[in-house]
Amino acid sequence: MATAGKVIKCKAAVAWEAGKPLSIEEVEVAPPQAMEVRVKILYTALCHTDVYFWEAKGQTPVFPRILGHEAGGIVESVGEGVTELAPGDHVLPVFTGECKECAHCKSEESNMCDLLRINVDRGVMIGDGKSRFTIKGQPIFHFVGTSTFSEYTVIHVGCLAKINPDAPLDKVCILSCGISTGLGATLNVAKPVKGSTVAIFGLGAVGLAAMEGARLAGASRIIGVDLNPAKYEQAKNFGCTDFVNPKDHNKPVQEVLIEMTNGGVDRSVECTGNINAMISAFECVHDGWGVAVLVGVPHKDDVFKTHPMNFLSEKTLKGTFFGNYKPRTDLPNVVEMYMNKELELEKFITHSVPFSEINKAFDLMLSGESLRCIMRMEG
Amino acid sequence: MATAGKVIKCKAAVAWEAGKPLSIEEVEVAPPQAMEVRVKILYTALCHTDVYFWEAKGQTPVFPRILGHEAGGIVESVGEGVTELAPGDHVLPVFTGECKECAHCKSEESNMCDLLRINVDRGVMIGDGKSRFTIKGQPIFHFVGTSTFSEYTVIHVGCLAKINPDAPLDKVCILSCGISTGLGATLNVAKPVKGSTVAIFGLGAVGLAAMEGARLAGASRIIGVDLNPAKYEQAKNFGCTDFVNPKDHNKPVQEVLIEMTNGGVDRSVECTGNINAMISAFECVHDGWGVAVLVGVPHKDDVFKTHPMNFLSEKTLKGTFFGNYKPRTDLPNVVEMYMNKELELEKFITHSVPFSEINKAFDLMLSGESLRCIMRMEG
Ligand SMILES: NC(=O)c1ccc[n+]([C@@H]2O[C@H](COP(=O)([O-])OP(=O)(O)OC[C@H]3O[C@@H](n4cnc5c(N)ncnc54)[C@H](O)[C@@H]3O)[C@@H](O)[C@H]2O)c1
Ligand SMILES: NC(=O)c1ccc[n+]([C@@H]2O[C@H](COP(=O)([O-])OP(=O)(O)OC[C@H]3O[C@@H](n4cnc5c(N)ncnc54)[C@H](O)[C@@H]3O)[C@@H](O)[C@H]2O)c1
Ligand SMILES: [Zn+2]
Ligand SMILES: [Zn+2]
Ligand SMILES: [Zn+2]
Ligand SMILES: [Zn+2]
Repeated sequence: MATAGKVIKCKAAVAWEAGKPLSIEEVEVAPPQAMEVRVKILYTALCHTDVYFWEAKGQTPVFPRILGHEAGGIVESVGEGVTELAPGDHVLPVFTGECKECAHCKSEESNMCDLLRINVDRGVMIGDGKSRFTIKGQPIFHFVGTSTFSEYTVIHVGCLAKINPDAPLDKVCILSCGISTGLGATLNVAKPVKGSTVAIFGLGAVGLAAMEGARLAGASRIIGVDLNPAKYEQAKNFGCTDFVNPKDHNKPVQEVLIEMTNGGVDRSVECTGNINAMISAFECVHDGWGVAVLVGVPHKDDVFKTHPMNFLSEKTLKGTFFGNYKPRTDLPNVVEMYMNKELELEKFITHSVPFSEINKAFDLMLSGESLRCIMRMEG
Repeated sequence: MATAGKVIKCKAAVAWEAGKPLSIEEVEVAPPQAMEVRVKILYTALCHTDVYFWEAKGQTPVFPRILGHEAGGIVESVGEGVTELAPGDHVLPVFTGECKECAHCKSEESNMCDLLRINVDRGVMIGDGKSRFTIKGQPIFHFVGTSTFSEYTVIHVGCLAKINPDAPLDKVCILSCGISTGLGATLNVAKPVKGSTVAIFGLGAVGLAAMEGARLAGASRIIGVDLNPAKYEQAKNFGCTDFVNPKDHNKPVQEVLIEMTNGGVDRSVECTGNINAMISAFECVHDGWGVAVLVGVPHKDDVFKTHPMNFLSEKTLKGTFFGNYKPRTDLPNVVEMYMNKELELEKFITHSVPFSEINKAFDLMLSGESLRCIMRMEG
């Protein structure tokens, strides 16, 4: 490649300050160093996590920064020691990695890689503690090792899943984060059997992906729970058979669900980030065999409280990070589920804008209009 | 049998009042009614649960009552509709039953039978709401459907496990309750793999049985945690490799365990009934794959509190009731584990007294001297 080993100048959307519109700038992207890969991004999507770190309300502010972590792209060049990827490979960047060497990567159960686990405060590459982005020499920080709001970005090889080159990147790019998280929470962790009753708390993109997992698993009753009644219409496309709004009831929603299901749901998946929903999601599962899975990211000071007898009555409580998928090992198979027409991705993609209109994607998410808005790189 | 269909007069230890020594009385035991079995008890052991309901401090007082629920005996006669048991069969009574018909009995995961699940307040048979015990016509209450502190007792067929007649009842009688509970908590619920690190909180009979399960599963490091340093000596016979007394440390014991094990234990089993130990047992497991299992029975007002991030880091929390064993289906196999010399039971049996000295067994348990004291029926 003509660009390999050289600095690339390209467009990126830079967040200069918390909460201020991103501005499209010309950035310099340094070549990948050892174990790094430079990727040409073709499509990137917007996720709530980008918005949280852009608002930086509860978060450590790290600015100026290039956000973005749901994307699809093509390898432009690779750094020293990278053997699993070559220029031209199609890849999905992932905010958490898989080094394949640590105890977590070697465990069949964990995907919480010691080396490449998500780190939201770090704005630099782990190899040398430096940024690969500059604007006229001034370093611009990275975001969760991906920074996909740029035509080119540099990513650790352990945070890239190599996927089927036939897969349409404008669709499968949304598997980088939220959709896989919700899907995996149901398929890998809750594991409902065919015919079971599943409750999904929170019907945002993550919850609807968890619902898609319940549909794929053959759940016969899928109960959506959300404070916003408008969420029901959309959820019907994802297999939602019943809708419960906690605000419509005088008693705790777990009691409503227990009555509706004659003892409790077989599985529940919480995708709200709200501590009360987490507690309800646990307490509403059936004794003897119920399993609740927490996905939502809680507030720093939240406390999960329940009576310990709920455990003795054989209810199980688990949580998951990125749907328990190991990024490099498992994501290619999720892409295949889409290619085999099992998994439906189109229904998550409600909007699409050119990259230059990225602030419109932020508006659509903030107003609650979009589930996923895809941004098309023009280059 | 000459006695079938007739009232049997025999000796029983009657608790007339909370906390007062039991008195050996002549009682009348009515014949078994539909789905009931009259059992001649040969050996019975004392468990903490008997002591709790005898003290009746936090419990509903139900007196006069015949306590006792760990035992081994022989079927004397059966009531109408009983086809699975016949006079002469060797049986273990169990405080919780298995009807084989309800959703729980039909589920592979649950052992919490809807019909015969433990009920500590009920002092009568479920068939007709009456007691089968009388003293000169005055009804004496049953206890958890077993009342084994009697030479003869009447038990629902669903609460009797038919076992290998070659198994020595003076040993396997302790599988009726606590030992199976601890053993099953590890083998059926925590399921440590060979070579793993397991922490056991509480080194009473239940905790030591959980430890025996860890030994059988091939755990390579077994950490005992107890507030009483005297428990370590005995625990060594059960495979305990390390001992931690929370009182010896200034920081929470979960932090001590996480340091000792470079990130947390693979499995933990809580057998104390203490809410702080429950929280520690959960928080000390390794992120990514750790599983904690609660066995201890908490106080009514206890609240389990933890930060929800502990779940998102992929720690699992479960509880178990009777070690997830289905009494009729699974207990015969646990007896076979003893017969095959895998499971060691002798080390749990620290004392043995004639039935007439039952109050001595209470003293031995209250003073903490005994793990299990077997009472021999003389008849
Ligand atoms: N664990 C992971 O790896 C991971 C990855 C991505 C996202 N997440 C988390 O998943 C959660 C959901 O993400 P999203 O993008 O779908 O968010 P979202 O804001 O689009 O959706 C959340 C939904 O939950 C509903 N809700 C809020 N409180 C509720 C309550 N008490 N009861 C019922 N419904 C309630 C809201 O009305 C909303 O519809 C967030 O907490 C996010 O941080 C976790
Ligand atoms: N779930 C079930 O099916 C089931 C069945 C039987 C017994 N149990 C329960 O199991 C528990 C244990 O029973 P047991 O007969 O072995 O009791 P036990 O009293 O003999 O043993 C409990 C041990 O826990 C220790 N302990 C107490 N608080 C502690 C703490 N904070 N940290 C560390 N150690 C602590 C005590 O020193 C003691 O050695 C009880 O709560 C009992 O009710 C449950
Ligand atoms: Zn790793
Ligand atoms: Zn995301
Ligand atoms: Zn049943
Ligand atoms: Zn017991």
